[in-house]
Amino acid sequence: MTDQDKTAFRPGRLQIDGLQYAAWSETIFRQMREGGMDAVHVTIAYHETFRETVANIEQWNLWFERHPDLIVHARTGDDIRQARKDGRTAILFGFQNPSPIEDDIGLVQIMHALGARFMQLSYNNQSLLATGCYEAEDPGITRMGRAVIAEMNRVGLVIDMSHSAERSTLEAIELSSRPIAITHANPAFWHPALRNKSDTVLKALGQSGGMLGFSLYPHHLKDGSACTLASFCEAMARTAEMIGVDRLGIGSDLCQDQPDSIVEWMRTGRWTKQVDYGEGSADNPGFPPQPDWFRDNRNFAGIAEGLLATGFSQAETDQIMGGNWLRFFDQSFGEEGAGSRS
Amino acid sequence: MTDQDKTAFRPGRLQIDGLQYAAWSETIFRQMREGGMDAVHVTIAYHETFRETVANIEQWNLWFERHPDLIVHARTGDDIRQARKDGRTAILFGFQNPSPIEDDIGLVQIMHALGARFMQLSYNNQSLLATGCYEAEDPGITRMGRAVIAEMNRVGLVIDMSHSAERSTLEAIELSSRPIAITHANPAFWHPALRNKSDTVLKALGQSGGMLGFSLYPHHLKDGSACTLASFCEAMARTAEMIGVDRLGIGSDLCQDQPDSIVEWMRTGRWTKQVDYGEGSADNPGFPPQPDWFRDNRNFAGIAEGLLATGFSQAETDQIMGGNWLRFFDQSFGEEGAGSRS
Repeated sequence: MTDQDKTAFRPGRLQIDGLQYAAWSETIFRQMREGGMDAVHVTIAYHETFRETVANIEQWNLWFERHPDLIVHARTGDDIRQARKDGRTAILFGFQNPSPIEDDIGLVQIMHALGARFMQLSYNNQSLLATGCYEAEDPGITRMGRAVIAEMNRVGLVIDMSHSAERSTLEAIELSSRPIAITHANPAFWHPALRNKSDTVLKALGQSGGMLGFSLYPHHLKDGSACTLASFCEAMARTAEMIGVDRLGIGSDLCQDQPDSIVEWMRTGRWTKQVDYGEGSADNPGFPPQPDWFRDNRNFAGIAEGLLATGFSQAETDQIMGGNWLRFFDQSFGEEGAGSRS
Repeated sequence: MTDQDKTAFRPGRLQIDGLQYAAWSETIFRQMREGGMDAVHVTIAYHETFRETVANIEQWNLWFERHPDLIVHARTGDDIRQARKDGRTAILFGFQNPSPIEDDIGLVQIMHALGARFMQLSYNNQSLLATGCYEAEDPGITRMGRAVIAEMNRVGLVIDMSHSAERSTLEAIELSSRPIAITHANPAFWHPALRNKSDTVLKALGQSGGMLGFSLYPHHLKDGSACTLASFCEAMARTAEMIGVDRLGIGSDLCQDQPDSIVEWMRTGRWTKQVDYGEGSADNPGFPPQPDWFRDNRNFAGIAEGLLATGFSQAETDQIMGGNWLRFFDQSFGEEGAGSRS
């Protein structure tokens, strides 16, 4: 590539974040606009029951009604294109855990009808469907898990294995008739955390047409909060060599403005009365500080500068910053067998 | 009109039933096709909570998946036009009671997203929103009722006052910014049952652009199960003179194949431990027999013969048999202020 290509500013580059869980507010919605975010996949459930998740959707409906100039609920890739034209940030719903469907497969279609587009099959622990990355044993996808994967494939609800264990993840990739996503995790070869993914998983994901969203959550980063943009982008370059640049996006895992009580909720929900530090520790139990180059949505565009500096072309940078996610959404959100943008 | 006009057979006349609550089965879905039904508004909740209503929607989703050649879920008037082209019966969801939204106004939009298109503000008794037709006192629309009417108007959920009391019904017509429906009831001037509607209500409904679906439930008919088709159609003719033929449709209230335990559930839900006979009596507690000229969906087309014999023109008969409902659906199911077929 030419030097000009590397440094040329590209106004209006498509920008999609594959996962955030902020303490949502008008302030953050305005920062999304300032940062030029076209779409954000937001977590609307960690350990919530069906009814509690519906209450969270009701809260989002109220935000959509109150801030129609800033945000809009998106159900398809075309909704994101429309939001971009209208100067709004498209919001996609997802769950980090299958708790919202309880033990009821019929709730998969119900949740899709309410706008859910991503569901993790497990969050750290064993679920009814699959195993989480902190369990000692990983027996793989359960009987209900197989049924739910087929139903998610049918209606167009993306399987997300970000917090799942190795065998369960490989089986999900194999069992799913459609490409899956790991919306927010990094390669273990770069930073060997339990939450990051092995070469085996990355290769299987890439070969199946799936997507990896690179996380900016400090516990997933080499050198944690001190991780540099150059190191982060270098990890993306090595991953692109391994599985192809088409498979990469960003899933920042931004937890902006959340109190530490929320990271406790994320880690322990209602499944234990003990303290569980997850990726943290007794010395560092709360949310870790963000790297200084990614504090909120206004810093998102800066990642592109790092990608260009690392050697990605403008076209490749466009793909990673949003183009790959949009292509994946077009393929993933409609009924199985329907048109590519259904 | 000419004699030829009166008797001419019209193949493929649009046929819409404004309310049924059968014990649904493949047999009944096949009868809908045999009877040429283009659309049926089906009751999916009497006294169910939110979660119980969602379970009923899940059951319908399973029927749609299992019988795609017979039925399809409709959310718009255009969905009905498509179903007609495809040779399927379009199914519209509605509630006879606001119990599915519990005390939570956010559930109005949630239920609309899940496909609900009609909700009665009260069913025989006082609800959180309005008064039912069997209460001794009718204080009119409640505080929450006013808020919910505005929300139903906003999202495109039709207000149905079939089982509501006089003052509440008149106030709902007045408060609603969009025309309302009485999906299944008859004029009290023809048969003075508590469930049937006064001239005052009929005129207010007509002047506001609302719709009256004529009921074929025997307790709503003059002479009950012995009511003749001629008498039924004569009542429609008198009502057309009063409020205009544009305001009339059929809402058969067909409860085919239901055991008598279901009429007990409809009448008493969980609100009393006593027996309540509703429109029945100790001598006649169960479902009354249908008139011999309307036993199931295969008899629907026969109503048109009665309308023509009574003096309605072919065009007027077309309107009553389905055209008026379709126009009303086009106006009613989209977001307020959106296009006529939104």
